[in-house]
Amino acid sequence: MTALENDTLLRALLRQRVDYTPVWIMRQAGRYLPEYRATRARAGNFMDLCRNPELACEVTLQPLDRFPLDAAILFSDILTIPDAMGLGLYFSEGEGPGFEHPVRDAAAVRRLTVPDVEDELGYVMDAVGMVRRELAGRVPLIGFSGSPWTLAVYMVEGSGTKSFARSKAMLFDRPELMHALLTKLSEAVILYLNAQVAHGAQALMIFDTWGGVLTPRAYRKFSLAYMTRIIAGLTRKAEGRRVPVTLFTKGGGQWLDRMVDSGCDALGVDWTLDLTDARHLVRDRVALQGNLDPSVLYTSPEHIRTEVGRVLTSYGPGPGHVFNLGHGIHPDVDPDHTAALVEAVHTLSPAFHGAIRSGNARHDET
Amino acid sequence: MTALENDTLLRALLRQRVDYTPVWIMRQAGRYLPEYRATRARAGNFMDLCRNPELACEVTLQPLDRFPLDAAILFSDILTIPDAMGLGLYFSEGEGPGFEHPVRDAAAVRRLTVPDVEDELGYVMDAVGMVRRELAGRVPLIGFSGSPWTLAVYMVEGSGTKSFARSKAMLFDRPELMHALLTKLSEAVILYLNAQVAHGAQALMIFDTWGGVLTPRAYRKFSLAYMTRIIAGLTRKAEGRRVPVTLFTKGGGQWLDRMVDSGCDALGVDWTLDLTDARHLVRDRVALQGNLDPSVLYTSPEHIRTEVGRVLTSYGPGPGHVFNLGHGIHPDVDPDHTAALVEAVHTLSPAFHGAIRSGNARHDET
Repeated sequence: MTALENDTLLRALLRQRVDYTPVWIMRQAGRYLPEYRATRARAGNFMDLCRNPELACEVTLQPLDRFPLDAAILFSDILTIPDAMGLGLYFSEGEGPGFEHPVRDAAAVRRLTVPDVEDELGYVMDAVGMVRRELAGRVPLIGFSGSPWTLAVYMVEGSGTKSFARSKAMLFDRPELMHALLTKLSEAVILYLNAQVAHGAQALMIFDTWGGVLTPRAYRKFSLAYMTRIIAGLTRKAEGRRVPVTLFTKGGGQWLDRMVDSGCDALGVDWTLDLTDARHLVRDRVALQGNLDPSVLYTSPEHIRTEVGRVLTSYGPGPGHVFNLGHGIHPDVDPDHTAALVEAVHTLSPAFHGAIRSGNARHDET
Repeated sequence: MTALENDTLLRALLRQRVDYTPVWIMRQAGRYLPEYRATRARAGNFMDLCRNPELACEVTLQPLDRFPLDAAILFSDILTIPDAMGLGLYFSEGEGPGFEHPVRDAAAVRRLTVPDVEDELGYVMDAVGMVRRELAGRVPLIGFSGSPWTLAVYMVEGSGTKSFARSKAMLFDRPELMHALLTKLSEAVILYLNAQVAHGAQALMIFDTWGGVLTPRAYRKFSLAYMTRIIAGLTRKAEGRRVPVTLFTKGGGQWLDRMVDSGCDALGVDWTLDLTDARHLVRDRVALQGNLDPSVLYTSPEHIRTEVGRVLTSYGPGPGHVFNLGHGIHPDVDPDHTAALVEAVHTLSPAFHGAIRSGNARHDET
């Protein structure tokens, strides 16, 4: 593989010294880009796009061609694993994803088999390899997966839910069944992420979209425990470098201190927590990724710059910050505003990394 | 007015000694009850039911006739105020509430007038008076309002939103306009809540449904500041007793310590925070209300009892706990499960209030 020209992201994730704060954007390859919409229209539906390595590679690279982002993230969906398990994934307009064969009883859990990631999920690995070749060392490639609990919610509910009735009923009434499901999913996620690394992913992220709907106790037992198990099973070194792992539990800001014990390198943080407080909670043991409110991109480029400055100031001087939104970019954002965000991070952040030479005091104003 | 037979709720909200932990349930008068659905069918649509004092009184009392709850809460909607401001409230199936005339510019904010609460909102006051008479002192009546920020979100968006695009754009780009709107709404909420007290409400609650979607900084400036202003303007004594005020910011668990400074008597807590931690955060300066995961009601009565015990243990011995769900009851819950919840609170909680006599140790197990 080609040597990496810009390793700022990897260094920041490992809390190493950098010259500026690296930035990427959750869902950076997505609907807010007209070129994405054009490729998507050519592909057919959303899963057709995910399953086509050439087109998945194409949309992965689109935001990189527009903005000087510090990372690419594979274009894919977290539901590829349950799809490969034969649950019959479909997407309906306005309602989001659903499964034709939801997992509701012991027989259904027993029937599930861990997919062969090089075969049934080979299209993902092909896309990873293709993106790495096309990137030619410009920036690192992030691979990802959904967390076992998040995948289980979709698999048990079978379609969109606000109340999590079926998944929580299983968790509370049949915990052993939920644990059996989560165990299988953890095994699948480990194989899936390790294969992504083998094919070229240089950093990994686990999206725990639904961890935040649990009680603290249930979160630890049914989500965090399995993410911890996964991290223990991951290839942590590839091409002579450590492969950093980031955990992101949406709505999990109150649990950051517990999440550090998972063995991850970095934690994603949404915008409901000040990075000052988040950094205090994790006591600089891991890097932090975040946390601009995605709605700031609806405002003017001048105001975006002000808010970017606020987030940088909130993290403060020193290493260990990866700039991102606190959640995926909204599909109706003006791409020029995304450009303003990236530029603001790149021009404002060097001041936060020259602390040793220039003194800290001036970075501490709010 | 008749003397109050059961003042356990009022005492608990003021952190006074009680014999057991009082319990009520957010949305206790609602769709999960067949008798509610029958009355609703007679009324016409949802707002017809809210606007009819006799029927609103009837559904307010229905859960009290079924379960030995320790409080009644007025059946109404938080959008009565913007409705009275002439915005043309409507409810569409599946999409939730909307306004025909959303508030999007300075002219629209200027045009808004604070409603005459005895006239345009007279139907609410009539319902309050009627419920008090019908209750005949059985339990106290809770009055309520939405928070200014929450009302503003609905008024600016005009219909359901996931991204809060318009309301956050106004907050960020035109903060002075948002402040003008929030100022008018705060004035209206003060008059509205004070009128409810004048007509018989014995405790008040402010629902800040959308405070939790803000950054900590925006939350303090655009939501908490106005709730604080409202509390300063409220009648705090009626019929010789203090009228306790409870604030509930959905998803605001990380800000509880700041919320105490609002001058409230109690804070609502959702289930993503252990009450042990919440109590530690507020350092026993206010009472806490919560926080069973509403999905626990999908499980068996035995398991409901176990989880009720966990919540009681999590708060621990001593006064200042009002048992509730961490969010409104789901509409598809079996009413018998609600009965099991109320019974479990009433039978398990006395042990947490005899701590002086029997020692604390046995309540601390988890």
